[in-house]
Amino acid sequence: MQYITITIAYDGTAYHGWQKQNNTRKTIQGVLEDVLSESFGEMVTIHGSGRTDAGVHAKGQVANFRIQNLHKKNSLDFDAKKREANCLLPSDISILDMQTCKKHFHARKSAEGKIYSYTIWNSSISPVFERNYVYQIEDELDVGAMKEASQLFLGTHDFTGFATAKTGQDNGIRTIYGIEFQVVQDKITMVYKGSGFLYNMVRIMSGTLIEIGLHKRSIDSIGSIYESGLRREAGFLAPAKGLCLETVFYKKEDIQ
Amino acid sequence: MQYITITIAYDGTAYHGWQKQNNTRKTIQGVLEDVLSESFGEMVTIHGSGRTDAGVHAKGQVANFRIQNLHKKNSLDFDAKKREANCLLPSDISILDMQTCKKHFHARKSAEGKIYSYTIWNSSISPVFERNYVYQIEDELDVGAMKEASQLFLGTHDFTGFATAKTGQDNGIRTIYGIEFQVVQDKITMVYKGSGFLYNMVRIMSGTLIEIGLHKRSIDSIGSIYESGLRREAGFLAPAKGLCLETVFYKKEDIQ
Repeated sequence: MQYITITIAYDGTAYHGWQKQNNTRKTIQGVLEDVLSESFGEMVTIHGSGRTDAGVHAKGQVANFRIQNLHKKNSLDFDAKKREANCLLPSDISILDMQTCKKHFHARKSAEGKIYSYTIWNSSISPVFERNYVYQIEDELDVGAMKEASQLFLGTHDFTGFATAKTGQDNGIRTIYGIEFQVVQDKITMVYKGSGFLYNMVRIMSGTLIEIGLHKRSIDSIGSIYESGLRREAGFLAPAKGLCLETVFYKKEDIQ
Repeated sequence: MQYITITIAYDGTAYHGWQKQNNTRKTIQGVLEDVLSESFGEMVTIHGSGRTDAGVHAKGQVANFRIQNLHKKNSLDFDAKKREANCLLPSDISILDMQTCKKHFHARKSAEGKIYSYTIWNSSISPVFERNYVYQIEDELDVGAMKEASQLFLGTHDFTGFATAKTGQDNGIRTIYGIEFQVVQDKITMVYKGSGFLYNMVRIMSGTLIEIGLHKRSIDSIGSIYESGLRREAGFLAPAKGLCLETVFYKKEDIQ
């Protein structure tokens, strides 16, 4: 038995999200499993660090899987295997890294934290080359107010009000370590680093900050969303295409 | 009569090039003329600075046209007109700028020079987010050799050997002012600034430099292409998707 972990980048535009579905719809997990199964000559099931929704992108999604029947166990050339898999994959999915991992490593359960980015294109001129990776807002945003409001997300809070309810989620308590604003001309990227994120949390936090940037909502309103814990008090669900899973963090000793 | 010039950005992936054709195939010029005709309420014919081929992109294409029947001639709000046109345009074409110009301004004939870029992705891992804008080469390129060879393109030469023959082209003499290499991780962008370029010239110069970077061709071979003027001696035609028309230059007094 070999235990393997991969890091993956994908353009989510053409996919119905990460998770394999019991139908014919194309998903990232489904395409990856098909390619890895072909490449390794056995049925492969992969476990991702988390499910990204339809249209959401990733530059550093992590997954793990195991291979039972390896003919040349000791001479497995991961670089060659990675190249082979990338040849078989469509051009909107790439395996960036492939390596062995510990038996107990699990891409989701072992994760110590994640970085997500949400990118806004703040101009009336549409972003021809990045149109699938940004959310265009024509009205001018007050980035100063958004930055100020983002400080209220830092630290440990119950973020239930900033999430879409989902069965099976433990509790709403998460820690946000930092939110960085990167502004390059008309492009505003908000980079969220946290211990973990509830379902839709980054998109709802981004929608809330956007409403503050448009002066449609006060900065103070964030406090009352924490208090009530009610989704309906928070901002709108910002579109999927602006969201990207940048990085997943692990303890080095959990991997190898 | 109003004389108008526009600057346009487009992702050429989905188009059969710039030039309108006598068939139903989608072209940049065709889509722009339809939108401008609708916006201005009369048949508009636009003149581009040059024709880009199918799959070639532009960040600063320039075109001009004239409007005959303007009801509110003196109050034409170009900013509003630009917004309106951008609303009507598909998301892969944007009008970046719209302004009046002199009667005699002609986007092609008045052009003093152009900048084109050609972008290579030099990695076995496919460029998920830029796959339509770069040419992927898996084998490692000797960028030093390419830079050295590119110096031989500088100055005034007869570039006939570096062009696809085309009827109606005056002669092969053009001046290259500079070729800059921008290397960011696996992405190599070659930026060509010149007085003008023959048909396919940037793609053939890029193909020649790539063959030198792969050590499939000597730097000295460039000299013999100048001497013979034979297309078959030069390198391959690098794929359209790596090419982008960045900027077109004019004398200020020719515009306004």
